[in-house]
Amino acid sequence: MRPTVDCGRFPIKRIVGDVVRVEAEVFVDGHDELWCRLLYRHQDGADEDDAEWSTAEMRPAGNDLWRGEFKVTKVGQYRFSVEGAVDPFQSWYRDLAKRIQADQDVATELAAGERLIRAAARRAAISGAMGDAERLAQWADTLLHALDRDDAGAAQEAALNEGLATLAVRYPDQSLASRYREELSVVVDREKARFSAWYEVFPRSCSPHQGRHGTLRDCENWLSYIASMKFDVVYLPPIHPIGRTYRKGKNNSAVAEADDAGSPWAIGGPEGGHTSIHPLLGTLDDFRHFVEAAKRHGLEVALDIAFQATPDHPYVLEHPSWFRKRPDGSIQYAENPPKKYEDIYPFDFETEDWKALWEELRQIFEFWIGQGVRIFRVDNPHTKAFLFWEWVIGEIKQKHPDVLLLAEAFTRPHVMYRLAKLGFSQSYTYFAWRNTKQEIIDYFTELTQGEAAEYFRPNLWPNTPDILPEFLQAGGRPAFMLRLILAATLSASYGIYGPAFELCENTARAPGSEEYLNAEKYELRHRDLNAPDSLKSLITRINRIRRENPALQTNQTLRFHPSDNPFVLSYSKASPDLSNVVVVVLNLDAFHVQKSWLDLDLAALGIPADRSFQAHDLLSDARFLWQGSRNYVELTPESLPAHILRVRRRVRSERDFDYYL
Amino acid sequence: MRPTVDCGRFPIKRIVGDVVRVEAEVFVDGHDELWCRLLYRHQDGADEDDAEWSTAEMRPAGNDLWRGEFKVTKVGQYRFSVEGAVDPFQSWYRDLAKRIQADQDVATELAAGERLIRAAARRAAISGAMGDAERLAQWADTLLHALDRDDAGAAQEAALNEGLATLAVRYPDQSLASRYREELSVVVDREKARFSAWYEVFPRSCSPHQGRHGTLRDCENWLSYIASMKFDVVYLPPIHPIGRTYRKGKNNSAVAEADDAGSPWAIGGPEGGHTSIHPLLGTLDDFRHFVEAAKRHGLEVALDIAFQATPDHPYVLEHPSWFRKRPDGSIQYAENPPKKYEDIYPFDFETEDWKALWEELRQIFEFWIGQGVRIFRVDNPHTKAFLFWEWVIGEIKQKHPDVLLLAEAFTRPHVMYRLAKLGFSQSYTYFAWRNTKQEIIDYFTELTQGEAAEYFRPNLWPNTPDILPEFLQAGGRPAFMLRLILAATLSASYGIYGPAFELCENTARAPGSEEYLNAEKYELRHRDLNAPDSLKSLITRINRIRRENPALQTNQTLRFHPSDNPFVLSYSKASPDLSNVVVVVLNLDAFHVQKSWLDLDLAALGIPADRSFQAHDLLSDARFLWQGSRNYVELTPESLPAHILRVRRRVRSERDFDYYL
Repeated sequence: MRPTVDCGRFPIKRIVGDVVRVEAEVFVDGHDELWCRLLYRHQDGADEDDAEWSTAEMRPAGNDLWRGEFKVTKVGQYRFSVEGAVDPFQSWYRDLAKRIQADQDVATELAAGERLIRAAARRAAISGAMGDAERLAQWADTLLHALDRDDAGAAQEAALNEGLATLAVRYPDQSLASRYREELSVVVDREKARFSAWYEVFPRSCSPHQGRHGTLRDCENWLSYIASMKFDVVYLPPIHPIGRTYRKGKNNSAVAEADDAGSPWAIGGPEGGHTSIHPLLGTLDDFRHFVEAAKRHGLEVALDIAFQATPDHPYVLEHPSWFRKRPDGSIQYAENPPKKYEDIYPFDFETEDWKALWEELRQIFEFWIGQGVRIFRVDNPHTKAFLFWEWVIGEIKQKHPDVLLLAEAFTRPHVMYRLAKLGFSQSYTYFAWRNTKQEIIDYFTELTQGEAAEYFRPNLWPNTPDILPEFLQAGGRPAFMLRLILAATLSASYGIYGPAFELCENTARAPGSEEYLNAEKYELRHRDLNAPDSLKSLITRINRIRRENPALQTNQTLRFHPSDNPFVLSYSKASPDLSNVVVVVLNLDAFHVQKSWLDLDLAALGIPADRSFQAHDLLSDARFLWQGSRNYVELTPESLPAHILRVRRRVRSERDFDYYL
Repeated sequence: MRPTVDCGRFPIKRIVGDVVRVEAEVFVDGHDELWCRLLYRHQDGADEDDAEWSTAEMRPAGNDLWRGEFKVTKVGQYRFSVEGAVDPFQSWYRDLAKRIQADQDVATELAAGERLIRAAARRAAISGAMGDAERLAQWADTLLHALDRDDAGAAQEAALNEGLATLAVRYPDQSLASRYREELSVVVDREKARFSAWYEVFPRSCSPHQGRHGTLRDCENWLSYIASMKFDVVYLPPIHPIGRTYRKGKNNSAVAEADDAGSPWAIGGPEGGHTSIHPLLGTLDDFRHFVEAAKRHGLEVALDIAFQATPDHPYVLEHPSWFRKRPDGSIQYAENPPKKYEDIYPFDFETEDWKALWEELRQIFEFWIGQGVRIFRVDNPHTKAFLFWEWVIGEIKQKHPDVLLLAEAFTRPHVMYRLAKLGFSQSYTYFAWRNTKQEIIDYFTELTQGEAAEYFRPNLWPNTPDILPEFLQAGGRPAFMLRLILAATLSASYGIYGPAFELCENTARAPGSEEYLNAEKYELRHRDLNAPDSLKSLITRINRIRRENPALQTNQTLRFHPSDNPFVLSYSKASPDLSNVVVVVLNLDAFHVQKSWLDLDLAALGIPADRSFQAHDLLSDARFLWQGSRNYVELTPESLPAHILRVRRRVRSERDFDYYL
């Protein structure tokens, strides 16, 4: 059966309204015809095993492959399977036609058929289809009477009634059905799991006055700015009290000055831990107010979940058993030898007291869900127990199937994938380090066309507070434009860490480092959102294009198209019905004009090879009349390093663009 | 884990002496080092679940992939799995080195390490490795003394001892090991399952006197002829009493003459059924004598198992419930509507009395095993219940793991593959209908390089009593030579239906038919084995080449090489160590000389690109000195349509062929 993930061990993922297309190899020994059908049901909480199966037809697609589909209409978890058996009625009907054609005596077969039809009528009646039951019973009667009259001609004619045969096939004998050896699962999320544009902002940097610690109320004043760029998720790094012990200073220095703000990921102080608000940011009321204000701007708030504590976190005193001990009895701080992070105590997920720890961590999610949060960005999930994530995400989504979780893991491929399998709704990727044409083609073909597409939903970030890629450092504003367009069009979900991104901040702490100079992680920042070079209008344009073009709201139709120039990348996306088709062409070189011939796969775009078509650049608003697969492009990095072309096939006349669809 | 078949539902297959190479993706959350190892054990009958696991090392191959292997040394079934866990010792040792290099104070870590080493010593002792236990305990002592003396330098030096660390790694803490979710299986067969050359002969046609029914004793006289051609399996169509009712006449005519011999597959008469010998063939003693004589000639006897009965079979009276009833109460004969086979009653594998039927059928195998038979060719297994085969083959091989079964199924691909998964040791294929270059490349790439290679062992037949392919009908002797060479070199197992094959009988019953005229299935045949045009010397040569060249005794190394001419096919096989490399080049056109440039993949052949090499044609004994990948061939169908080239790389001087290896 397909689709499956790891032989059915993990669920596939879909969005409300999606159609799940199922394929199964179904066959039986011997020459009998068979029936098979798709079973599916939504898992509604406790009574999950008693829920009735819904069924959908499966049709043979040749070579013993059968296909069927069902629509998922509710968030939560569905199960599905396939069942089938030999179908004596169909085998009989098929053979009867052949026998009659060969002029054989079929009296015995007709008598057998009468019994098969009557059995189908009985099954129709049991299933409540009294009308069908009646029609089938009449069919059997007609046949029987003809046989009783010894009227072979009439009996044969009656038996071969195609319409009635089609009806009988609908009521197969299910008593011998065998089922696929596993029930498979689908996790169904709301639309935002697939299509989202994130904006990461540090509330403490939102103060209108340089040097003053920003508050949630200050950050509220930024919402109209963020919303005007048409983002739909505003993601806040941790908003909790920050530890004092071993607090990191500016630029990650080991010793902090008295007024250093510390890293928001160093969670916990005397003022509280993971369910408290940093006093300088405001109160829980302020936070709820922020969530409501965001909602009015069409923004959802995503909170950071970083399961670690500073030495000052209340847990350290209250639950010392939740932390690992060093050989000398002190609590084990985080380290990646020889690096030490003495300001951070990781939780010990294998502690004897794990039940209490895991339950407490679950309650942290519940607490923020109670404050109106439905999206969480989870910090470094790969350093916590896999089993914990599978359990806690299962628990959360059972009660709140609309909750979404983004896994912030930058680690080895199998571990990245595993976290997605365990239940994370979206995942960070290697996008920040995929810059060349071949790297991009290989990686996104893997993510969108392989098994990963069934469970791993990429969320692309051209920058994060921890990652200022070399390409942005070197390439300046053209590089920022390029990486923005790539992120926003390669993937239906993407995000930027702002305002560092739109202001094209690109100074690294040191040569060879991917860390920001004066990183916001360790200090307050104050910026001019109206700086003339800001990319905000480009961002706004791109996010509007994303909203207006369903093609860009999905990844499954991503196709790369050949081009002659190794710096020119071209790919397309299309809505499933091909009513919306977008071709993106980019100059990957941030420094030079690049020209190329494209070789578009017109069939994938739904464009007839022999007709001209319109390519409407949604970025520049230019319209090109193209014909055939070979087309020329020339892209200047400083002005606009890309085309985002809405492709319309010609309907009537090439003289009137309104006739393009 | 790999290799698996259908997620572990079915076993993979191997041969005694094979090495099973296992790959597993093994990883853990966090940054700990881990250990993992391969578990395997032979299943010895009843106490299978108690058997001790043997273990083999697994080594990391990058990207979280680990590899290990074990050798299967006994026929029967093995199980294997992988287990692993985090390894605190290795994590400690890795981190310690980094800490010391960074000049950190490691007193605490050294104390922790001392305890980890001592634990490893304890585990070594428990496993009985007293020497290792002693060395590890001494290591811990040395470390402890240095620590007690506060001699940091000595303690560090002691701790970093690489040899002792390697020793400690051998005794990981298994208490937290987790294991792959399934135990996987390997069915291990004897060599003949992979490498065999079959000769099918009808004993009743072995009489020296035309028109007289041949006997098993007559057939015995043919054994030296068959053995002289270097076959190793002699396969007899059914040797049981043949039914009289509805007996088929010559050329499958519906009415038999009084003296018509009938089809051997119409099993059962008053003289007995599946465990009886046709009286005209001889007695059970004669059969045992035949088996012994064959053994002396280096031949194994393969018997036909055709689970069906004639109306005259003793079962029909004794066990009428084993057959399906027609609506009029008569027993259902075989049919493929509108075709009727009234001389054959199929068994009803779903009868209420199925246990007795299945057990009886199992006893038929046991009976012939009792007469010394270890190879069975099973007729039309796809028309019998899948479950029956899985059960009966499991039962047989549990008691007699040296038994081999060849599935004679010509049906849809998934069904062919399923039968192999259920336990058949070898399988008939679509070879008879794969004639063009691309057909052959596609089909044999699928069989030898895909998942099928793990469980499906092809046995290629250029003809059978039922199949005289169009290509042989049209192409005459050159076509027979070509198809023989293809069968014998593409696959490690092949067979011919003789003497029809070596005598190049190629007259079909009718145009467009693939049935033989005067098919041996329905009548006695009398032939001159010494006919001048016989292919027996070519067959002998080819079978000798197969025996002398290990490359031809396996399929897994099959590689196709490009050639310019669509009628010229080239492929190679190699022994695993590349000590024996064979390149086959064929002219697929039975009518015309064909010339071509070959483009050999020299790396796959183990030939350095910059040196000349010798290509020794084992068919013609010609030797060519070739250099580089491009080489020219010209093949004449009437003389020899192929080269079978033993390829030897040059060792010392091109002047002395003895120096080629």
